[in-house]
Amino acid sequence: MCLRDPYDPERFRADGHRLIDALADEMTRWHARDGVVIPWREPTRGAWALDGERGDLVDDLTRIARASTALANPRCMGHQVPPPVPAAALAELVAAVLNNSTAVYQMSPAGAPIELAVVDWMARKLGMPEGAGGVLTSGGSVGNLTALLAMRQAHAGFDAWTEGTRQGPQLAVIASDDMHYSLSRALRIMGWGERGAISAPIDANHRLTPAAVERALAEAGDRKVIGVIASAGSTATGAIDPLDELAELCASRGLWLHVDAAHGGGLALSATHRHKLAGLGRADSVVWDAHKMMMMPSLVTAVVFKRESHVYEAFAQKASYLFAAAPPSERWWDLGTRTLECTKRIMAIEIWTALRSVGEAWFGEVVDRQLELAAALADHVAAAPDFELALRPDSNIVCFRHLGSAEAPIAASELDAHNRALQQRVVEDGRFYIVGTQLPRGYFLRSTLMNPLTEPSDLTGLVDHLRALCRR
Amino acid sequence: MCLRDPYDPERFRADGHRLIDALADEMTRWHARDGVVIPWREPTRGAWALDGERGDLVDDLTRIARASTALANPRCMGHQVPPPVPAAALAELVAAVLNNSTAVYQMSPAGAPIELAVVDWMARKLGMPEGAGGVLTSGGSVGNLTALLAMRQAHAGFDAWTEGTRQGPQLAVIASDDMHYSLSRALRIMGWGERGAISAPIDANHRLTPAAVERALAEAGDRKVIGVIASAGSTATGAIDPLDELAELCASRGLWLHVDAAHGGGLALSATHRHKLAGLGRADSVVWDAHKMMMMPSLVTAVVFKRESHVYEAFAQKASYLFAAAPPSERWWDLGTRTLECTKRIMAIEIWTALRSVGEAWFGEVVDRQLELAAALADHVAAAPDFELALRPDSNIVCFRHLGSAEAPIAASELDAHNRALQQRVVEDGRFYIVGTQLPRGYFLRSTLMNPLTEPSDLTGLVDHLRALCRR
Repeated sequence: MCLRDPYDPERFRADGHRLIDALADEMTRWHARDGVVIPWREPTRGAWALDGERGDLVDDLTRIARASTALANPRCMGHQVPPPVPAAALAELVAAVLNNSTAVYQMSPAGAPIELAVVDWMARKLGMPEGAGGVLTSGGSVGNLTALLAMRQAHAGFDAWTEGTRQGPQLAVIASDDMHYSLSRALRIMGWGERGAISAPIDANHRLTPAAVERALAEAGDRKVIGVIASAGSTATGAIDPLDELAELCASRGLWLHVDAAHGGGLALSATHRHKLAGLGRADSVVWDAHKMMMMPSLVTAVVFKRESHVYEAFAQKASYLFAAAPPSERWWDLGTRTLECTKRIMAIEIWTALRSVGEAWFGEVVDRQLELAAALADHVAAAPDFELALRPDSNIVCFRHLGSAEAPIAASELDAHNRALQQRVVEDGRFYIVGTQLPRGYFLRSTLMNPLTEPSDLTGLVDHLRALCRR
Repeated sequence: MCLRDPYDPERFRADGHRLIDALADEMTRWHARDGVVIPWREPTRGAWALDGERGDLVDDLTRIARASTALANPRCMGHQVPPPVPAAALAELVAAVLNNSTAVYQMSPAGAPIELAVVDWMARKLGMPEGAGGVLTSGGSVGNLTALLAMRQAHAGFDAWTEGTRQGPQLAVIASDDMHYSLSRALRIMGWGERGAISAPIDANHRLTPAAVERALAEAGDRKVIGVIASAGSTATGAIDPLDELAELCASRGLWLHVDAAHGGGLALSATHRHKLAGLGRADSVVWDAHKMMMMPSLVTAVVFKRESHVYEAFAQKASYLFAAAPPSERWWDLGTRTLECTKRIMAIEIWTALRSVGEAWFGEVVDRQLELAAALADHVAAAPDFELALRPDSNIVCFRHLGSAEAPIAASELDAHNRALQQRVVEDGRFYIVGTQLPRGYFLRSTLMNPLTEPSDLTGLVDHLRALCRR
């Protein structure tokens, strides 16, 4: 192969046209429920090994598509990962071709300002006040870490970035039992260990209440509590904490309020459901994954601060060295001062072009649809004598379990094992996809309704499918 | 807009074909050096604001492409970011459409095993021994943080993940003055503060020598040094530390050796140049960005451990809770135990399909070309009386500065300001792109030769262009 050949624009054109047709054909199949959701194979070490063999690009990519989980199949109702809106996938191709690094304005004179425009739009949607701002980053885990670093720097009472956190009291946060593991990880990455989080029990609706926070505060002992972590759409159940009440408590106690709205931030797009996020705009920091209910390809996460200046505290070393000469806030156009990433991929043109081509209203309709489907599934399993609904969903996550038939009910002690085995059967069968989660009451099946193409008949079909798998 | 319309495969097909043609046309322009590299505009807050206006997807994306920095223009010779090989950009479109999360095998029965196959291939290329392994992650900054977390867990002498790092002695690493800022950031994220790194001066070739490490070790005082951080392709100059000697020292002292080969890892692809990485396979952990010399779109970074089991130590909480029941190493197919990310995007099909469609040999030829171009630029400025070469390049990064003409030399005290202003002029003019860096001797212009389509005439053209800008 000649050095220039792979860069030949005509080669790209020919491969590109073939690939677009292949993908459009796959989409048609997926939407028609033609084929399985999961083409299950036992994991085998050494599968797909690179052995020097050559392959045709489009043939290889088509083969990979067929061996992948079909999120666009309306019977895929598992994790909180959407079938991306195709316009955004096309924008991702452009982002890849351009490869501008949005950390530096010179390297991304379109990508960087578009990112700021998108973050400003997202902050407004969340109800954040004038003066809010933030950045896009590589997923909710990095986003949550970024927010907690800013909290640490703003509330430790000393320059934690430069001086380290061995001095002073042990720092800690209050968080519910249901906190996403990325937040627990972030605290341990920061060297706070398990004592860095004081766990507050969730209530019957799986929510963190101010009363539980108060009780947890009383357990701090020698630890200095600097913040509270709330969820707007917890991972396990989609439950939304009472944000306004928690904001009130944090304001009166001088605590930083971080809201992990990675999942539920999407409710801000719906006129019908955004009231559930009331109080979110009072948080000091919020994380919102556009690759969840906003139907973007992963990863694109907004970290939004009520005061934009806080975005510079997370990675403060440059600020501390150069503050007099050139504070990062005076170079707002170089986003590298705001994020963990150094080379930073274009993330915002997907959202920006999708909003302009599809229209903002469509995104609200998708959220409405997701929540309607979740309510319908919840109703259906609640009415079924052989199933139990864990709780009414706040968003689009439905947790339920199979209790066995009237003739052959499952013993209480066997319910967890039975439902675990059932989930594994669903995966290996492949025609539908749901997942499972451990709740305080036991192991439950878990379905997230992400795909707006899912129909009510798919929901009743799922329940019938589960029954059939149990009979086998 | 009807709810289903944006998912219509025929809409995707029509938009997709138009977009492929538009991008192929842009590529043709870029390669022909038609138009500027940087379409410079002063940063303006509020540019590209989302105001509810509608736009056509392909028209918007084309407008964004034209307002972006043209990395594929052969006169773009700035940062260490490549024009991606177009096959990989097409694979990125497939990754976006599929949106499988490689953290969980069920969600990515092709993407996850392909990632393991690619990491194994990369580990072999780096000369890592049998039993090495790792994961792909979202960029070198997250990669370096991941490696240092594994080092902390393996060498702290206690369970730092669970117990936190307030106990025991202050932990520290030895690193050169030239360490990338992501590593300094990682130490501060972990709460080690500025005392977490003991700085060792670089030698005249900008390399970290064992002697300098020994001297730094003697300055540890009450700190417990647990590792050494070396560079294989430092960011400022591309210098490669003497890895084999450093590995010898670390082995004898019981220190963890982490090599930041984010940039220079690419030399492993070249039969001509891979000898410069001798000793790399002895490192405990290595970070290598495929989105640099391997021509992938960002971000795709390999974190490779000499002992694959170390990959589970970085985020050890699950391991510590569940070790008896189900150690993560027994669920090697769920990559979420290995990475900071929870939802983890498909990253490896780009590399996998490019290797099979373009052939492995091509990637070596690209690296050879990059280094030939760098040597040619270095020769040219070294021979020019009005320029000064900072040092002979180890890889494809060339640092040099303008000294003024024979008739009007720049005073030594003015050199930094003169070259800084010159770099800014280059950016605002836009026809070529180079950057700048602060070296111990002062501010230097800096060019990274990433684009294999760059010709020697572009290099002499750059130098003439700089002279012309100075005359203006």
